[in-house]
Amino acid sequence: MTFHTPPRLPRGFRCAAVHCGIKTEGRDLALFASEVPAAAAAVFTRNQVPGAPVLVGRELIRRGRLQAVVVNSRVANVGTGEEGVARARRMGAATAAALGIEPDLVLMSSTGVIGVPLPLDRIEAGLPELVVGLQDDPLVGAQGIMTTDTRPKAISMSVGPATLAVVAKGSGMIEPNMATMLAFAFTDAALESPVLDGALRDVVAETFNMLSVDTDTSTSDTCALMANGLAGPVPEGDFREALLQAFTRTTELLARDGEGATILLRVTVTGAASRADARTVAKSLVSSPLVKTMVFGGDPNVGRILMAVGKCFECAVSPERVAAGICGVQVLAGGLRVDFDEAAVRDLLRADPVDLEVDLGVGDARARAWGCDLTHGYIDENAAYYSS
Amino acid sequence: MTFHTPPRLPRGFRCAAVHCGIKTEGRDLALFASEVPAAAAAVFTRNQVPGAPVLVGRELIRRGRLQAVVVNSRVANVGTGEEGVARARRMGAATAAALGIEPDLVLMSSTGVIGVPLPLDRIEAGLPELVVGLQDDPLVGAQGIMTTDTRPKAISMSVGPATLAVVAKGSGMIEPNMATMLAFAFTDAALESPVLDGALRDVVAETFNMLSVDTDTSTSDTCALMANGLAGPVPEGDFREALLQAFTRTTELLARDGEGATILLRVTVTGAASRADARTVAKSLVSSPLVKTMVFGGDPNVGRILMAVGKCFECAVSPERVAAGICGVQVLAGGLRVDFDEAAVRDLLRADPVDLEVDLGVGDARARAWGCDLTHGYIDENAAYYSS
Repeated sequence: MTFHTPPRLPRGFRCAAVHCGIKTEGRDLALFASEVPAAAAAVFTRNQVPGAPVLVGRELIRRGRLQAVVVNSRVANVGTGEEGVARARRMGAATAAALGIEPDLVLMSSTGVIGVPLPLDRIEAGLPELVVGLQDDPLVGAQGIMTTDTRPKAISMSVGPATLAVVAKGSGMIEPNMATMLAFAFTDAALESPVLDGALRDVVAETFNMLSVDTDTSTSDTCALMANGLAGPVPEGDFREALLQAFTRTTELLARDGEGATILLRVTVTGAASRADARTVAKSLVSSPLVKTMVFGGDPNVGRILMAVGKCFECAVSPERVAAGICGVQVLAGGLRVDFDEAAVRDLLRADPVDLEVDLGVGDARARAWGCDLTHGYIDENAAYYSS
Repeated sequence: MTFHTPPRLPRGFRCAAVHCGIKTEGRDLALFASEVPAAAAAVFTRNQVPGAPVLVGRELIRRGRLQAVVVNSRVANVGTGEEGVARARRMGAATAAALGIEPDLVLMSSTGVIGVPLPLDRIEAGLPELVVGLQDDPLVGAQGIMTTDTRPKAISMSVGPATLAVVAKGSGMIEPNMATMLAFAFTDAALESPVLDGALRDVVAETFNMLSVDTDTSTSDTCALMANGLAGPVPEGDFREALLQAFTRTTELLARDGEGATILLRVTVTGAASRADARTVAKSLVSSPLVKTMVFGGDPNVGRILMAVGKCFECAVSPERVAAGICGVQVLAGGLRVDFDEAAVRDLLRADPVDLEVDLGVGDARARAWGCDLTHGYIDENAAYYSS
């Protein structure tokens, strides 16, 4: 399977984005809509202080059907209490009215600053222009959901007679856990909601949940999948494989565009005693500030790889069995640093992406994780985010 | 109790530090010695790839007696296999010979780069000058164990007729867990080794283990306590209280001098359902890159406090009961942002230290944690540590 260039939406899906005045400038309100109701599934953040849209979204998704998603950026509608929940419902209802569909077929998402009231009047005022502007390019919708992202993220691919498209945003406060950042997947394949739900949960566990930009778990993470059936049935196995490829690619786009990031960091752990161990060690490496600054600095300080393996206290680790490589060049064997061409590894570390490979040598389980380097840009962005 | 200015060593303890040639310049080898054997206790890193000195130290401390500690910086003797263990033993034996005491009364510590052989010849060559140079100022020994620390760390206080002194080093790869960074405590109080061990473990749990500079757990963490008895007996309760105060102060010194840090960050969590919950939430706040950059930026983005509470998935959290303050000014109540004087809070955030107070409102357990802001200095230091 290959990705379409440029990306396109599946049959019956359209999107739009406008500037409604929540941000000072730029698109801040987006809409994704199917011409017919779609089977749907969604997963949300595990953060215990979830946003109002997450609380409402968990209710809505129980019916397994959606027809539209409305998203604003800049204000997250988190830490806003009962009034926040009421505003999230009104945002969905107003969108449904503008589209002429049932209110409980509209999922709403909000991201941005926490603890600030949702400017519902501006959103409502922007809806007519939004509905009129519905069109076919997924990158337009992707632009409307950006916060600190430096570029819009949308991909698509074919799966049998159907199309699968993903639109997503990053780029800080990213450590998804049983959910993801904002990612919306649309397909015209005909699949039932329980099938979508199973595929979504399994694939998210392997992709978005193995992504960390900064170990901070957002209060707004939402990943929804809609299937409107207009292209007819697709075998479940084919669809799952396509979803895995699409979400893996989206995960890489999110990691590569993490706040301040200059390099996509990919970690593969093999030889673990269990799948859980492999995931823990992979996450430890991709989240370690010292590994991340090593990648930024392009310096093969391989002791930091050992450190990040060893700090997984509950995992089966035998120091003398640990091997590791950087972009295919072995740097550790039997827990010891091996002689390697430092100049060559420095060059590899300066290219994008950087792959770290760790073999624990104690079993046959494996896992992958995605992240990015830690740079001055991350500090700049987050030392002044609220005021800017 | 108050801290001595300047700090001093207890009766019978002396220290020295020399440049033996492991670093390009500056003191890189330090010795702390008691004139008589002392009762002792120690805790070490939980990292599963511990340094050779940690492996040997765990054996030595079983006897509950020490007379000296020898420490080198720049090379950690980690990831060095059997040969590393042999060199650690020789480092201890050579020091014992130079002092004319039994080999298994000498604890050795090494910190610095991982995966590089310990330059034993330079250490052995430096020992005679080290032993001749033994003197009374703990700051001299503290200088000899510094790595990326910007200043030496030594404090002392009186406890009844006795003195308690602590010498420590930071400053990156700091997320102690059941142990600490290098911290050596010396007292002339007469206390048995099991009493020391109990006090050490309890106090470390409340202090060094609640410190995080960057969430990375060192492979070399060691905290040892020696009591040579020359001042006679001290009530155990008094000694524990003194140790708690001394280690709390040392924890603040380590956090304040974390790599790149400009501000000491202290977090107090109250109203938790359990002590474990209070500790988890306090650690989450003090470790969050977004809270740390908020402190660096001096920007009261209080939503990040809510986020860091909410990402403690396993803790009892009711969003509508969460209250929080910044340096005594309430910023959150009932899970909602309250009106506060933003300009005043900005000023408080720019002063050192910064205190964050969180009340979970669901119980009566509490905990404290210590950390620092995340700055450009951390990136600079760690993007080029190995080569420099």
